[in-house]
Amino acid sequence: MKELREITRRDVDFASWYTDVVKKADLIDYSSVKGSMIIRPYGYAIWENIQSVLDKEFKRLGHQNIQMPMFIPESLLNIEKDHVNGFAPEVAWVTQGGSELLEERLCVRPTSEVLFCDHFKKIMKSYRDLPLLYNQWCTIVRWEKNTRPFLRSREILWQEGHTMHETCEEAVEETKKMLKVYEDFQRNYLALPVIVGRKTEKEKFAGADITYTIEAMMYDGVALQNGTSHYFGQNFAKAFGIEFLNKENKLENPYQTSWGVSTRMIGAIIMTHSDDRGLVLPPKIAPIKVDLIPIGNNEEVFRKMKEIQKILDKEHITNQMNRSDKTPGFKFAESEVKGYPIRLELGLRDLEAGTITLVRRDTLEKISVSLDNIVENIRTILESIQENLYNRALKRRNSMLYKADTYDEFKSIAKSKSGFIKINWCGNTECEDKIKEETGLKSRCILEEENPDGQCIVCGNSGKHKIYFGRQY
Amino acid sequence: MKELREITRRDVDFASWYTDVVKKADLIDYSSVKGSMIIRPYGYAIWENIQSVLDKEFKRLGHQNIQMPMFIPESLLNIEKDHVNGFAPEVAWVTQGGSELLEERLCVRPTSEVLFCDHFKKIMKSYRDLPLLYNQWCTIVRWEKNTRPFLRSREILWQEGHTMHETCEEAVEETKKMLKVYEDFQRNYLALPVIVGRKTEKEKFAGADITYTIEAMMYDGVALQNGTSHYFGQNFAKAFGIEFLNKENKLENPYQTSWGVSTRMIGAIIMTHSDDRGLVLPPKIAPIKVDLIPIGNNEEVFRKMKEIQKILDKEHITNQMNRSDKTPGFKFAESEVKGYPIRLELGLRDLEAGTITLVRRDTLEKISVSLDNIVENIRTILESIQENLYNRALKRRNSMLYKADTYDEFKSIAKSKSGFIKINWCGNTECEDKIKEETGLKSRCILEEENPDGQCIVCGNSGKHKIYFGRQY
Repeated sequence: MKELREITRRDVDFASWYTDVVKKADLIDYSSVKGSMIIRPYGYAIWENIQSVLDKEFKRLGHQNIQMPMFIPESLLNIEKDHVNGFAPEVAWVTQGGSELLEERLCVRPTSEVLFCDHFKKIMKSYRDLPLLYNQWCTIVRWEKNTRPFLRSREILWQEGHTMHETCEEAVEETKKMLKVYEDFQRNYLALPVIVGRKTEKEKFAGADITYTIEAMMYDGVALQNGTSHYFGQNFAKAFGIEFLNKENKLENPYQTSWGVSTRMIGAIIMTHSDDRGLVLPPKIAPIKVDLIPIGNNEEVFRKMKEIQKILDKEHITNQMNRSDKTPGFKFAESEVKGYPIRLELGLRDLEAGTITLVRRDTLEKISVSLDNIVENIRTILESIQENLYNRALKRRNSMLYKADTYDEFKSIAKSKSGFIKINWCGNTECEDKIKEETGLKSRCILEEENPDGQCIVCGNSGKHKIYFGRQY
Repeated sequence: MKELREITRRDVDFASWYTDVVKKADLIDYSSVKGSMIIRPYGYAIWENIQSVLDKEFKRLGHQNIQMPMFIPESLLNIEKDHVNGFAPEVAWVTQGGSELLEERLCVRPTSEVLFCDHFKKIMKSYRDLPLLYNQWCTIVRWEKNTRPFLRSREILWQEGHTMHETCEEAVEETKKMLKVYEDFQRNYLALPVIVGRKTEKEKFAGADITYTIEAMMYDGVALQNGTSHYFGQNFAKAFGIEFLNKENKLENPYQTSWGVSTRMIGAIIMTHSDDRGLVLPPKIAPIKVDLIPIGNNEEVFRKMKEIQKILDKEHITNQMNRSDKTPGFKFAESEVKGYPIRLELGLRDLEAGTITLVRRDTLEKISVSLDNIVENIRTILESIQENLYNRALKRRNSMLYKADTYDEFKSIAKSKSGFIKINWCGNTECEDKIKEETGLKSRCILEEENPDGQCIVCGNSGKHKIYFGRQY
């Protein structure tokens, strides 16, 4: 019990609180491989739930899964100039295979655009072959210096969609459609009140024309970029010489997109919903939704709990019973650390009274319900937890959204508050850089749905965009 | 049509036939990364079907999925002596991260025993923590010189189970249980009449006490090792200093197993069931079970086929309609190359007669059935195909199983026939090596259920085992 409770308080040291939660909830373990983490069964089960929902949705929208090599020969990485400049500084290089030195070194894929292009070039002949709608679930490697579990790691589990289209319009539509898939998923399953928008020229993906982004705000007001969707235009297609015969029987370069989300989303869930007692998980992606804890060592209680488990199994509500010889207090603490959305406590006295105690993890509220309509109660409360987590996060996020009409106001908010600051901006990288240098805040995203209503707060030139700035993980 | 038909005849050149089939059926494509292949959507969908069945079975038996790092520091790989000697010659080494040379080089995991041991050591305290039943789906790398799609590749998609137990008996039981899972799966889903047994000391896994193996015989009589299950005893546990407090409150080393199957199984399916027209897939793992081909450009025919599709969807029988503007002949050939278990042909005349033509891929038999009870017919025929593929493969395999009572007889069979040869063997590596050197045949597996009934055919000493020898992929 002592060990379980040793979680740094969230408001005292957010970073330590975070690593305490991921460790104590058995989501990850550190490994002997610097910068790489072990995703333990409980953490991996969350990822499997995420995969299962997204994979179905990708397939429903016509995408097919594929598996590309994990290595990229240096010459292949070098083909698209912006891309190589963006990624080469942070890749891992294989230089030796068995006992022989390789003639050409291979990088472990940091992302797979060039591998897909190499393949697309071979299989694409005419407009009849388009669109090509591919997705890959895999591990990528980026040689990060400072790593944190789920947020920034040398190895990342993710999915990367790669598509090719006949027209610019269709490719842009795909870019936005997949962004919307991510947005809906993060709102509805992860209970994250995300902000979506467009990255600036400076912050967009290396090689892209447009990068759309999902920006989530963590409990501490710091941003987590939680998914991106890119429109490449014909950039890679031209660099790789990918062509198809269009309907007018002319050779043309196709239009390309890519989009990805990663295990970083698990970090976002933790840093948005969890608390001083440990993990809090949205029921829709919680591996175990109901934790049953028998009070006392009584056969009748065990029997009743097994009966309840059978009913829950039948209703596909994942559950477990904790029959270890630990004290009830220890089991309650463990249940809270692990973030099981509902815990059921049943003792002999409850059984005789025909009731059971139900504790919701989000509010820690205890509710005594009749044993007769337990499934109905659990269903309702799971829905209520899902909704409450979203609303609570939304309220907190909204309380940390600011507007600045002048640069002085911006600097003052940046110094005293955490959160995102909305401004009018001229669109020039100089002003963006100046803000970064002087305040440490980076541009989050351009809000395409909103119009600027004043001058750029930095240079005073005509405002071109409404844009959010914020600190980031 | 011409392009589709360009498959080398199986009996003329088996190796070329195989690569033609994997390419023409769109299972794989070669990549710019030497020795690595691209698993295309149709090939990957077979792997997803395999994963789905096995993953459910692993979980039903209490295993949990986990994700380990993909890199292994050289010092970690070096801890277990036999293991490092077995694997070090064939690993890929990362020596550079970003622009810096690494102080210690990292190998890309060829298998993950040492990573699991490193983790087990940290999380295991007492017998209450045991058994630990883990599985990982991932990619591994082995720096092979000669590669062939699915059979031998520098990157391999696989699963690796890793478990730790309190007692030797329990670990041996797990080793055998998982072998049985593989055996049943390969028989019942992949329709492969596999032979199971124990590897010799020479052929067992580097670091294992016992290696059990699944040996499949391909159409050409050559063996494919198609899954292994290892009992490690306390070898790794001792080398890594892994201990737990047993029930007598004494520190003890736990007992370990590992077991794995890979995309190589897809190679086995192809080399067992396919023919000169292309791929033949067992219905139970075929991504598309029914291929609907409308004859002629007729709206009524299309409508009826869509109706049939709806019924099949409802019954969870995967299907597709080929509405391209190609000729029916082309579509038939394509359907055969892709190995869809059943194809349905419907023209206006059939429609008027209330019938439809059903063609089974395994026998190419055409059956005219009433449109009224189509689902029932399809179900029956899918089952019949599954059964027929197994029986056909079993018959062929049995026709290539030989026995040799003397070494001369062995050499004569080895020279003139393809297949496996069963002999009495003394158990000494010298005799095993001699057979390998003089005939090219390697030991496949010791048959634990059979007793030797004579002297070792090589040295004449007392026979210890019945064992199969054969050539291998």
